[in-house]
Order: sequence, then C-alpha cells, then structure tokens
Amino acid sequence: MNIKKAVTDYPIQHALADRWSPYGFEERAVTEADLCSLFEAARWAASSYNEQPWNYIVATKDNSKEFDQLLSCLVEANQAWAKAAPVLALGVVSLRFAKNHKDNRAAVHDLGLASGNLVVEATSRGLAVHQMIGILPDKAREVYQIPEHFEAWTAMAIGYNADPATMPAALKERDLAPRQRRPLGDFVFAGQWKHASPFVSKRDT
Amino acid sequence: MNIKKAVTDYPIQHALADRWSPYGFEERAVTEADLCSLFEAARWAASSYNEQPWNYIVATKDNSKEFDQLLSCLVEANQAWAKAAPVLALGVVSLRFAKNHKDNRAAVHDLGLASGNLVVEATSRGLAVHQMIGILPDKAREVYQIPEHFEAWTAMAIGYNADPATMPAALKERDLAPRQRRPLGDFVFAGQWKHASPFVSKRDT
Repeated sequence: MNIKKAVTDYPIQHALADRWSPYGFEERAVTEADLCSLFEAARWAASSYNEQPWNYIVATKDNSKEFDQLLSCLVEANQAWAKAAPVLALGVVSLRFAKNHKDNRAAVHDLGLASGNLVVEATSRGLAVHQMIGILPDKAREVYQIPEHFEAWTAMAIGYNADPATMPAALKERDLAPRQRRPLGDFVFAGQWKHASPFVSKRDT
Repeated sequence: MNIKKAVTDYPIQHALADRWSPYGFEERAVTEADLCSLFEAARWAASSYNEQPWNYIVATKDNSKEFDQLLSCLVEANQAWAKAAPVLALGVVSLRFAKNHKDNRAAVHDLGLASGNLVVEATSRGLAVHQMIGILPDKAREVYQIPEHFEAWTAMAIGYNADPATMPAALKERDLAPRQRRPLGDFVFAGQWKHASPFVSKRDT
C-alpha cells in the first residue's frame, strides 16, 4: 500500500516517485528471491574504476540472534522503529582502492549508488526501504570484525510499510506527514552558482 | 541502442540492467523536457534529515561558452571523451547541514542517491550517463564561485551512446569491453565479515 507517492513537477518513473522511507513495517517477511534481486540490483551500480566499494551485512528476523546483533549497531532512536522491519542491512564501504591502497574519493558516493539501485528494485517489488546514517560504526566494527580501511556507513530497514492506522501515534504522524523537496530552480544551475538553469526557469514561469 | 545490458544472476528491473557508462556519445541533443525529468528524479531521492545536499551545475552544448567552462573542470583524461556529450553536469555537495552547520556524514552518499535516481530516469528514457569522479574541485570553485562548505564532487556526461563502429579505436574498445561485477557472495554477508549470507550461498551451490 503506497500512501506517499511523490507529487512531482515533471514526470518521473513510478519506481522513483513511489519510493519513501516508512517508520512503520508489517511483520510480513521478505522472500529470499526478493532479497537476491535487491542485492543484485546494488551489484550493477556504477563505481569509480569499477571498484564496487560496497558491502552489506544482512540480518533477517527469523534469525533473532543475528537480527539483534545488527539492531545493536543502530543508534537508539533508530532501533526503536527499525526493530519492526523483517530485514536489516548495514552498508559497509571500502575506503581505499583494492589495487593500489589509495583513498577512494568516490567510495561513499558509490555506496549511495548501490543502495539507490537496491531501493529502486525494492520499490518496484512493492517493498519499502528506510535508509539510515544513524548507526554506530565502532560497534559494528567490533561486532562483525570489520577490517581496517572498511567502515560501516549506513543501514537500511527493508520490508512492507505498515498501515499507519495500526501504528503508535508518534510514528504514525511521521508516516502521514507530507513529502517536501526544494524546487528544481533551487539546485539546478547554469553558468554560475545559484543561477537557475534556463531549462528549469523557463518552465517555472 | 543498448549494447551492454547486464547479464544478471537474479532478475532486476530493466532500468537497472540496461545502465552502463559509455565513452562515446551521439551528437543528438537531449530535450529540455527530458532534462527536467532527470533532475526531478534526483530531487526525490532520500537524504539524511531530508537535507537534500545535492546541487548540479548543468551545461548544454548549444551554449558553447558554458559547455567549455564546465569541460574545463574535468581532468584531461575525461575531457578527451566527455566533450562529445551534449550535456555535462557537475555534482556539488553541501557538506554541512543548513540548519545547524554541523558536518553531514551522509552528504556525499546522498549525492550518490540523487545522481543514481537521475541515471535510472535517464536509462528509462533511452539516455546514457557516464559519471565521473575525475574532476578539478578547486577549478570548479573558482569558475562557479562555489561557496565554502560546498564542494564539486562528481560530474556526469549525459546523452545518447554512440555506435562503437563510429568511434576511435581506443574508446571503441572500452565501450565493447564486457561488464564485470563481483558475485553476490563476495559482498553480501550475514553474522560475520566475509561470511556469505545464506540466502545467497544457498542459491550459488
């Protein structure tokens, strides 16, 4: 049930407009076939020098030990709602190039590309993903023995968004709040910083 | 003409499998309607605290002064092929939260989410995007008067991929090279670092 489709100024693909980040999740599990396709989608993202700096540690609720372990790597405020999701994942980035050990300036960006692909695949399958930056990287390093030059950077809660009517008041409000974005003219420029690109300003008038 | 659809181990959406990063571009321009939808797609990406830390400076070839200005912000190796694209864009990230001026650890990641959305929209419209990390951030700051705490991080060449038969030998080879990725078991873990998740290893056997 999608309750928050984006109201767009220009047409975009359903898989992009339908995406939002719920605080409420149904108990319903995600199938293994869906999970394989989600991470397969991440796999085919672009990356600088095809480094593929992304790694994911995944926990499903049917393994309560592993699920609790992963949950413990989130900040408390995220644990509070993310514990309802049937699947949690940590995004762990390789900060240096494997071939020459130099810093990879694109690493964190390319983790974003991979996770973004995963979210498109999820949305297309009726699943919802809530991405988080509020995690405990040092805790994750300890729990999973993450090696040097790799770092847990993000987390994701994956599942089916809950009907807000079934949710506690505080979370329900968040899931019912309208979606807001800066207009295109605020961030698409030409020639000079803060000068809206003509293809945007022409249409906004 | 898509010549490099991904050969996937698990099914994924066409807009993800069809994406690749060409070195050759046709002269054909991108319509303003397509450009609006591409950046609209970026607009609806997720971001930490809905900060939307992404900004884009866009140049189209019909404005040769602006196009050359943007081209001058790429490293030479990228200028060599990117000059053929009808549209270039710089991705400029806001490194601090607007509301409290604190560092935004998700900023570069979230630029990746926005650019990833743009690429999905482009692929769905038959366009190709080649993303670059090889840019000159200091040059971009000077050319566009990019303010402190913002930084040019990425670039994109946007257009229609060329028929390799029409391309110089060196570039043609790159566009005809097979696409390679690590298998899922190499980067999707459970319980411990480098332990392939059971939903992956079960299917790989």
